[in-house]
Amino acid sequence: MEGIADKVAIIGMGCTKFGENWDKSAEDMIVDAAYEAFEEASVSPKDIQAAWVGTTSSGSTGQALSRPLKLQYIPITRVENACATAQDALRNACFAVAAGMYDVALALGFEKLKDSGLSGLPGSQVGVIGAGGTAPGGFALAATRYFHQYGVGKETLAKIAVKNHHNGSLNPKAHFQSEISVDQVLKAPMIADPLGLFDCCPTTDGAAAAVICRKDMAARFNPNYVTIKGLGLSVGPGTGRMDPTYDFVHFPETVRASQQAYKQVGITNPFKEISMAEVHDCFTITELLIYEDLGFVQKGDAKQAIDDGVFTLEGELPVNTDGGLKSFGHPIGASGLRMLYEIYKQLQGKAGARQVKKAELGLAHNLGGIPGSFTCSVVILGR
Amino acid sequence: MEGIADKVAIIGMGCTKFGENWDKSAEDMIVDAAYEAFEEASVSPKDIQAAWVGTTSSGSTGQALSRPLKLQYIPITRVENACATAQDALRNACFAVAAGMYDVALALGFEKLKDSGLSGLPGSQVGVIGAGGTAPGGFALAATRYFHQYGVGKETLAKIAVKNHHNGSLNPKAHFQSEISVDQVLKAPMIADPLGLFDCCPTTDGAAAAVICRKDMAARFNPNYVTIKGLGLSVGPGTGRMDPTYDFVHFPETVRASQQAYKQVGITNPFKEISMAEVHDCFTITELLIYEDLGFVQKGDAKQAIDDGVFTLEGELPVNTDGGLKSFGHPIGASGLRMLYEIYKQLQGKAGARQVKKAELGLAHNLGGIPGSFTCSVVILGR
Repeated sequence: MEGIADKVAIIGMGCTKFGENWDKSAEDMIVDAAYEAFEEASVSPKDIQAAWVGTTSSGSTGQALSRPLKLQYIPITRVENACATAQDALRNACFAVAAGMYDVALALGFEKLKDSGLSGLPGSQVGVIGAGGTAPGGFALAATRYFHQYGVGKETLAKIAVKNHHNGSLNPKAHFQSEISVDQVLKAPMIADPLGLFDCCPTTDGAAAAVICRKDMAARFNPNYVTIKGLGLSVGPGTGRMDPTYDFVHFPETVRASQQAYKQVGITNPFKEISMAEVHDCFTITELLIYEDLGFVQKGDAKQAIDDGVFTLEGELPVNTDGGLKSFGHPIGASGLRMLYEIYKQLQGKAGARQVKKAELGLAHNLGGIPGSFTCSVVILGR
Repeated sequence: MEGIADKVAIIGMGCTKFGENWDKSAEDMIVDAAYEAFEEASVSPKDIQAAWVGTTSSGSTGQALSRPLKLQYIPITRVENACATAQDALRNACFAVAAGMYDVALALGFEKLKDSGLSGLPGSQVGVIGAGGTAPGGFALAATRYFHQYGVGKETLAKIAVKNHHNGSLNPKAHFQSEISVDQVLKAPMIADPLGLFDCCPTTDGAAAAVICRKDMAARFNPNYVTIKGLGLSVGPGTGRMDPTYDFVHFPETVRASQQAYKQVGITNPFKEISMAEVHDCFTITELLIYEDLGFVQKGDAKQAIDDGVFTLEGELPVNTDGGLKSFGHPIGASGLRMLYEIYKQLQGKAGARQVKKAELGLAHNLGGIPGSFTCSVVILGR
């Protein structure tokens, strides 16, 4: 398995303002995200030779993209893979370019959730797993078990929410741009004990896009291009919660997807080698577990690292510098590319008030489903 | 664009009996199709490094595949692209293998329609196009216009249905295995004038699968492997029926997708160079138009070729040798791989009573949507 490392580059990205975009249709947001990316890549729609579109509830075929962008009879694949949808769309686009099939391609993810609501999750669950298997309920089980096993409390999770809201307050495209305090998090209405309102990400509209090309052509389009270094994807067998040994305090899909990507890039010490990360903080407990599952800290050591500020903007390994799902919002099919948009800007040194000191390798982590039944994507970008 | 020609081989395929499979769940059919392919490829589930699954209404993530096949944390992408879903799943799998990312991969399409009914079509249509835009209604417009323009009548379409039922009568896996007569077709209940019941394909359950690998490894798994020669995909801008010049008698998506594939393979005279084809006969008029759009005959010449028996099993260019959608059935997400299953068997010389004389290059054509708004896939296989 040689991988696709260093064969494909991102030459332009776009991302809409995330939020309650009542004044924008899905098609409006697709146009906004795509044209921001086109402009930076110095391409027009006619230069796009093939496209991949990710969405979970707002379209069913490639025409979700051809219609608003007036793409003329090119190949367009629609990918759906729960919350990992957008990164999997990009992953497949990268394979096609790496295979030499197309020189320039588009990957775009979008979701219009405020109008239509969230459909299909967790409708695909079966039998006993399905009953009560909401997202907050599933992750509350993980939090409860982690608290019991590692002597951690709600204050630790609250610090993650506070950090991500702080980062989001510096981001004009974030859904929520206000600071919150630990006290506010702890006093918020309960959603699924021990997860309160501020432990949960919101329901959001948005779109994000990437124009990619063969790396050997990238400088012609954009000298400030970014390189695809690693692409991991792991889909669980969906039987975790029927397995009596399932521990709820680590998610094997995150471990496997990151191991795939680390191997492709040659990373052996992710904490030292990764400059910054965007991870799937659908709930605060999720971000905590991801620190450990990605190998940023040892199992059980997340609390100390959080207390030490390791993952803040000024810390050794800043995480969710753009505000994360918690503050930037979570339009499901768009989130994975929104994460990459932030990493792309950080690697280019264009992240403004959120710019991290060192930005050499960035990791994006996308997790779909509920504990015991995940789809996980890990993408690593570099210069 | 160098294409992926000759980089990827199919080393095993499987296909369930198509039909009203009340006694089989979607998961049962997935297992049946996959294990037939695994057995021929001499692989087990643990040898599959990545997978692609196509379905339009029976699942939303890669777990549609991991759960029944007990796949352990490998990458699985779910692709949906209307009736072109299965071939687009295979197409993306081929890109990943051609890129050197994986050595052995699985593409599988399935649909359980008799239980759940057909959802989502044409729900994605907007405005005036959506109103009344059913599949029979859309293709009836094409038939009416073609009849007017080329002086053809229902008898010509009936001969296509009769041919496909004859082929299906030789196929133990077909949904319908009975011969029909031109008279029966003409006297059948009207669905959308001029299309009667026997001009329409049925609603069907089924699954089909392909195990692919790097071509340079193929002989180790199966000396009787088949090679992926061309992969075309064209998604229309979805504006055809609002375009006053849209003619309803040719489908640009079919033309474009086939041109992509012909170019990859180096085909200049498809009628002479293609040995046999499986095409998307969702309605009899569709198959007629496809003959012309694929360049098998000139525009307006289909009637003469049909009358001459050109596309029968014994003809110069046999089409839908397995019975086609009309007789084999149409589980949407499976149909594209079902077509390839027949070509694969024909190229291997294993098509039994349906074996064609010459089987060097086979073409499969998958068309999703309604006139003015199509997704079209063309895949060419060879030895």
